[in-house]
Amino acid sequence: MATSLKLGLAGFGNVGKGTYDVLKRNKNLIADRTGTDIEVKRVVVRNPQRVRPLVDADIPVTSDWRDIVNDPEVNVVVELIGGIEPAKTLILESIAKGKHVVTANKALLAECGNEIFEAAQKAGVNVAFEAAVAGSIPIVKSVREGLAADDIEWIAGIINGTCNFILSTMRDTGRTFSDVLEEAQKLGYAEADPTFDIEGIDTAHKIMLLSAIAFGIPVNMDKVHIEGISKLDPKDIKYAEELGYRIKLLGITKKSDKGIEVRVHPSLVPNKKLLANVEGAMNAVVVKADAAESSLYYGKGAGGEPTASAVIADLVDIARTAEVHASQRPKMPTVSADKNVNHWTDFGDIVTSYYLRIPVEDKPGVLADITRIIADNGVSIEQMIQKEAPTKEKGTEVILLSHSAKEADIQRAIRTMQALASVRGPIVLLRMEELN
Amino acid sequence: MATSLKLGLAGFGNVGKGTYDVLKRNKNLIADRTGTDIEVKRVVVRNPQRVRPLVDADIPVTSDWRDIVNDPEVNVVVELIGGIEPAKTLILESIAKGKHVVTANKALLAECGNEIFEAAQKAGVNVAFEAAVAGSIPIVKSVREGLAADDIEWIAGIINGTCNFILSTMRDTGRTFSDVLEEAQKLGYAEADPTFDIEGIDTAHKIMLLSAIAFGIPVNMDKVHIEGISKLDPKDIKYAEELGYRIKLLGITKKSDKGIEVRVHPSLVPNKKLLANVEGAMNAVVVKADAAESSLYYGKGAGGEPTASAVIADLVDIARTAEVHASQRPKMPTVSADKNVNHWTDFGDIVTSYYLRIPVEDKPGVLADITRIIADNGVSIEQMIQKEAPTKEKGTEVILLSHSAKEADIQRAIRTMQALASVRGPIVLLRMEELN
Repeated sequence: MATSLKLGLAGFGNVGKGTYDVLKRNKNLIADRTGTDIEVKRVVVRNPQRVRPLVDADIPVTSDWRDIVNDPEVNVVVELIGGIEPAKTLILESIAKGKHVVTANKALLAECGNEIFEAAQKAGVNVAFEAAVAGSIPIVKSVREGLAADDIEWIAGIINGTCNFILSTMRDTGRTFSDVLEEAQKLGYAEADPTFDIEGIDTAHKIMLLSAIAFGIPVNMDKVHIEGISKLDPKDIKYAEELGYRIKLLGITKKSDKGIEVRVHPSLVPNKKLLANVEGAMNAVVVKADAAESSLYYGKGAGGEPTASAVIADLVDIARTAEVHASQRPKMPTVSADKNVNHWTDFGDIVTSYYLRIPVEDKPGVLADITRIIADNGVSIEQMIQKEAPTKEKGTEVILLSHSAKEADIQRAIRTMQALASVRGPIVLLRMEELN
Repeated sequence: MATSLKLGLAGFGNVGKGTYDVLKRNKNLIADRTGTDIEVKRVVVRNPQRVRPLVDADIPVTSDWRDIVNDPEVNVVVELIGGIEPAKTLILESIAKGKHVVTANKALLAECGNEIFEAAQKAGVNVAFEAAVAGSIPIVKSVREGLAADDIEWIAGIINGTCNFILSTMRDTGRTFSDVLEEAQKLGYAEADPTFDIEGIDTAHKIMLLSAIAFGIPVNMDKVHIEGISKLDPKDIKYAEELGYRIKLLGITKKSDKGIEVRVHPSLVPNKKLLANVEGAMNAVVVKADAAESSLYYGKGAGGEPTASAVIADLVDIARTAEVHASQRPKMPTVSADKNVNHWTDFGDIVTSYYLRIPVEDKPGVLADITRIIADNGVSIEQMIQKEAPTKEKGTEVILLSHSAKEADIQRAIRTMQALASVRGPIVLLRMEELN
């Protein structure tokens, strides 16, 4: 009665190799546990010569992805190539032939997901993507199935290991961003071109996918506010620490009466929260829901075998639900644009609390000006401290933590303060998440 | 095509009421998300008069659990009575009538699970129990489905909120166990008879269930080593803290070449680990697996709606897999006694590291005697410090942290040391878990 999956494996980098190796090593365990026989039918890679010795001799290793699409025995395609093309065409053509798809490709799904999910729905096949978000952590499953009963309020996650490694190291050592980035590149924690990671784009892809699942909305990258960590000053990490906070790059999505918001930016997190204590390249996601309340999921966000663990879990689920009606399967993100929840919160309307660092002249009246401007814009101050600037810069710096306020109000206050003659340089704005 | 579940709800305490309320409040959300219509068909409670006003008028509320068994329309029984009887008979008779079962009853499943799971397998129905372990945390799902690809090495969890509240408070305040227990009882964190919680029995039930799922073994409470927290001295909490550790009541299960071990006892956990930072009544479980490596799941371990969230997630899963062959559903624990993994590690054969507190006379040669005995028993010392005992007690205390050692060896060393004339009182032994 065992369902049998015959895989076309596209891509044999770390994750492709991890998937192949774990399937082989734990074959009996997986079959015994799940009633599912999973067999790699063929492998497609750019350079078959490199991969040939890594794969059993009876499995064809070729270079044309159409070999997977055109093999009628392949019933599941595992896309681990990454990037938009040829991954997208491979997936769409596979779907058209009635094959299920498992992918770790967050960029593709976040940018072109609606087209892909719509095609899959029409064809009655699954596109599973646990491995696309937070590697080994079963966060897609937990949100979609574990919290199936819950009205989800918000999700906040550390879902890019490169950024978390850089931020942890900056805090531990006091070194600058560019200095630590270089180390991360040497250690293999950051790519030669790190833009996708450090500018928050990778985090944005992942939090958009989680938002789509949690709130039943189509993916829409145009609505995501994205700020990375490349401009972060070690000084702010130090001041935050003194105030009892750690700075993490968070992907955040939240539902309010104004709509859905999806945003990525460095955030001050109270250091008593577990999320603040997620160090190095590890990932963690907090979900706030109406019945379950707060839960957190932590694990390896990248790496060959950790990500393979998620790929294979998806394969087992596909086997399990292959014969049930599509309406009974865990839902792929909707592609229906008229979902009434599909109202997006304007970024100016988001409400959070703020950290400001304002470089000022050290003279009477400056603090009075600043506090008046803040108050005039309807923002209330929770805490304010003054810091001596390094001697060569002269002047002082005012560090200000606000209570909850509207983004547009704080931005207006900053514009007004920036125009003061006594403000000596750019005001630094960071957002704070209390995670309550 | 929507599957329809008609529930017989047995029990209307916090979790029963939570389940009813969440099903009602999020009815449309759940139906939309899962394609499943879940309807409470009838409620059975000890005191129908109390519950009648809390339930819609068209739903019968009666006091005889047979009303659920005998209602042919009820296709799923939600057992939230707790305890062994009448829960056990209700469940077995429901299974015999082909009804699925969802239960939060860890004591029943850990003590009588084999009988229940065997009956369910024969009848082709599901017995789901996400709510029985760690409340809202989808840990059963994560281990069984999220880590379906993985060979699991060990699981360690803080899975009793009462104990974690007591230990957190003892550490924060330096107060004694009995003092804090009294406070916990006043706050509703501990029962009038707290034995099940504080003596580790509740934790043992839950870790036994996780062990059964993770390692594919039948439940067997006779094999669980159980120590609670009632004898814990605040002094050891303080010393542990000074050494960089926190004391947590852990449920631990591990697979080694000697077999499976399941144990519950206070454990020193390095304070840099997330698990050490789980405070108050919260729960968390760490799973170490061969592909996914380390992952952690954190959330509310008790409470009406958090536990209801898990109950309802199980209901959705039952709807989803109601029509697939039983072999394709996530597996219930095996009841097959001849599983070759069914070899249990003798407690004397477990390997971990240890914390010892040895009250000694303050005179020359004592340390030499102790270190010689430790070495003679094949145990090596990682760290040793001496503490002045309170003046009225005279003498000093030796605190000793060992490297990994065999339980039988450390026990033999303790027996030998205890016989020394210079050892002035009982030696305190605690186990340490590095969680690597």
